[in-house]
Amino acid sequence: MSEPLRVNGPRLRADLESLAQIGRASSGGINRTAFSDADARSRQWYRDRCDASGLDLSLDGLGNMFAQRAGIQAEAPAVWTGSHIDTVPDGGPLDGALGTVAALECVRRLAESGLELPRPVHAVVFADEEGNYSHLLGSFGLAHGYDQAALEAMRGRDGDRLVDALNGSPWRCGEPTGTRVDAASIHAFVELHIEQGPHLEIAGTPIGVVTSIVALGGGRMKFHGQADHAGTTPMNLRHDALQAASAFVVELPGIAASISPNAVITCGLLHLEPGAANIVPRLTELTLDYRDPDRERLDKLAEAIHAAAERAAHNHGAQVSWQPDLSIDPVSMDTGVRGVIAQAAADCGLHTMALSSGAGHDSQNMATLAPTGMIFVPSLGGRSHCPAEHTDFKYIEQGANTLLQTLIQLARR
Amino acid sequence: MSEPLRVNGPRLRADLESLAQIGRASSGGINRTAFSDADARSRQWYRDRCDASGLDLSLDGLGNMFAQRAGIQAEAPAVWTGSHIDTVPDGGPLDGALGTVAALECVRRLAESGLELPRPVHAVVFADEEGNYSHLLGSFGLAHGYDQAALEAMRGRDGDRLVDALNGSPWRCGEPTGTRVDAASIHAFVELHIEQGPHLEIAGTPIGVVTSIVALGGGRMKFHGQADHAGTTPMNLRHDALQAASAFVVELPGIAASISPNAVITCGLLHLEPGAANIVPRLTELTLDYRDPDRERLDKLAEAIHAAAERAAHNHGAQVSWQPDLSIDPVSMDTGVRGVIAQAAADCGLHTMALSSGAGHDSQNMATLAPTGMIFVPSLGGRSHCPAEHTDFKYIEQGANTLLQTLIQLARR
Repeated sequence: MSEPLRVNGPRLRADLESLAQIGRASSGGINRTAFSDADARSRQWYRDRCDASGLDLSLDGLGNMFAQRAGIQAEAPAVWTGSHIDTVPDGGPLDGALGTVAALECVRRLAESGLELPRPVHAVVFADEEGNYSHLLGSFGLAHGYDQAALEAMRGRDGDRLVDALNGSPWRCGEPTGTRVDAASIHAFVELHIEQGPHLEIAGTPIGVVTSIVALGGGRMKFHGQADHAGTTPMNLRHDALQAASAFVVELPGIAASISPNAVITCGLLHLEPGAANIVPRLTELTLDYRDPDRERLDKLAEAIHAAAERAAHNHGAQVSWQPDLSIDPVSMDTGVRGVIAQAAADCGLHTMALSSGAGHDSQNMATLAPTGMIFVPSLGGRSHCPAEHTDFKYIEQGANTLLQTLIQLARR
Repeated sequence: MSEPLRVNGPRLRADLESLAQIGRASSGGINRTAFSDADARSRQWYRDRCDASGLDLSLDGLGNMFAQRAGIQAEAPAVWTGSHIDTVPDGGPLDGALGTVAALECVRRLAESGLELPRPVHAVVFADEEGNYSHLLGSFGLAHGYDQAALEAMRGRDGDRLVDALNGSPWRCGEPTGTRVDAASIHAFVELHIEQGPHLEIAGTPIGVVTSIVALGGGRMKFHGQADHAGTTPMNLRHDALQAASAFVVELPGIAASISPNAVITCGLLHLEPGAANIVPRLTELTLDYRDPDRERLDKLAEAIHAAAERAAHNHGAQVSWQPDLSIDPVSMDTGVRGVIAQAAADCGLHTMALSSGAGHDSQNMATLAPTGMIFVPSLGGRSHCPAEHTDFKYIEQGANTLLQTLIQLARR
């Protein structure tokens, strides 16, 4: 029996390091938001890597990119792997980049090894995963497609229109409304990603096998009080919208803990009106994001959040209103693919643990097209979406080898 | 003995109503911020009233306006009365306007009555009391003066420079650096104002005799936590800067109550960073305003606020820092002038109550020049700095008559 195939570690490391230079600010943070100049440079970098390895690169109407071994005209549904190359503003070097570069390395390694597999393996780079224009833009386009009206409504963080960005981009081919793929053409999808949380590091386990991607709710909670003069209105006569909102916010950790250890509730945006140092706030608007791996528990979380908001408003002579704007069901990873990942890790001599993903991923959309799985590697201190994002290269290489073995097993089935 | 002199009630009412039309928005709120077009129209309105009554109007280099009976060349130090004609954005019809129009009416009434008094009585309109460019701008200029550098640094809410506004204004005369007046030229100052709080209304008392203007502290409290992914960071591993800040904010009413029934603490501005729905806040910056009539109690209030901030930060794995930017000592009203006001009210058959002012007023600065007093009338529901600001005209007329009798008594002493 020959040696099992392994990725080229030094090449993988060099690629991650050179990609991390693109869009890097003096702060160390990486700015490669979708369809920015830095995003275009990273796409050119990816094309150069494909050219150097003799891989064919193709594009679709939303700027999703697909790399495969040149000259392959297989009939069989393909195994796909990949992630995204864009980042959040001031992001880190691995979120998306790891899964993108590891997928490229696996397809490249398979091509140069000459290994013959019954199914082709494609590396994919999904456009705008981080939602500069829309959350998981590219993979949603593959799974569901967009109509022209939906595309025309999409605006970037800077207020620019997606359709203008696409019109001016050489990194698309074909119509943005024509990106939906035939589910029958895909045999399975696997994505390697950093955990972005602390569980693998705490457990000392190199490989996470993702069970599901969490359910997510969100929206804006508004507390309506009364504006009053900060100097002349006694404390006990106020209807202070910030006091009401603060009494609500301090309840959130207890509410999450009462539902499940995996439940999280975050308020990351807060807006006050009229917003003057010497006026008691009339309005406080909180943007909430709450998640749990289980749909029923998510509903209970929402109920408890609303009840706490009503109590806080009542206790401060305020009113409360709720405008939901996000509700995403949990997505289970395919048990068959999970089994293949676990076996692949074991073949590499690596321990695994099952865990859910608290973050959204393109795998959510791919799971509607084909059996899908995700491989996590540890995140140092659980940090992500920031310059401190880091994973020891030992874990990166182990994750990439687990991905390669998983792809080989899936392409043989 | 002749009838005591009284203001012309219908004329006072008509003047208040016509002034309230200047700068009025469709919402009912009044926008006459200092040196705006509406401010200029209200100044022209004031000049027209002076012209119609044969009063002389003069200006200084900051746009303070002074009206007096024509042809008077008295040697004796004058009695001053007045307030301001500018408003906060979306303000009410009485804050400043009441004291301005009542002062005009008193000087006008004295002129037309032919009453001979040993001292002249001047009506003054202070520029920019509401601090579009600087808190109590005009009266500070009279009491202390400004140097050129201080004036050049002042910017309006819209970012424009005060010196540019003054250069283009016909509503100033002379140098902005030359506005300081000789304290010896002023015998006393009295300002009529709405209470802007609920105490007179609750007590059913028409006239408040102000004892002092509160001490005031303020600044920015920053809670420094750690930015983390909202989906992947367990609640118990977060260093959430908003959780720390909210735990602090909910303590504020209890802290105020523990110091005195008159202590108030307000957070009217709050800023989050990075400010994204799916990122745990790294920074929360609160702007605080806290007041108490007593300087020692204000210091205790500040100590208790800082201790609560440290506790909240410690309990949430955050750090806290404090940048003070305001500290104003309390200003006592002159006991002699207070006695004259109380006697004047009694002569008008009106009950009085002593109370402190939770708001700042031009009287703070005038008190450094001359014995100063303030007369308050009830505010409906304690509301002010908003379109709902209202006082029954019965109280307005009673306040104006109390002011007139006070001025006569002061001008005779």
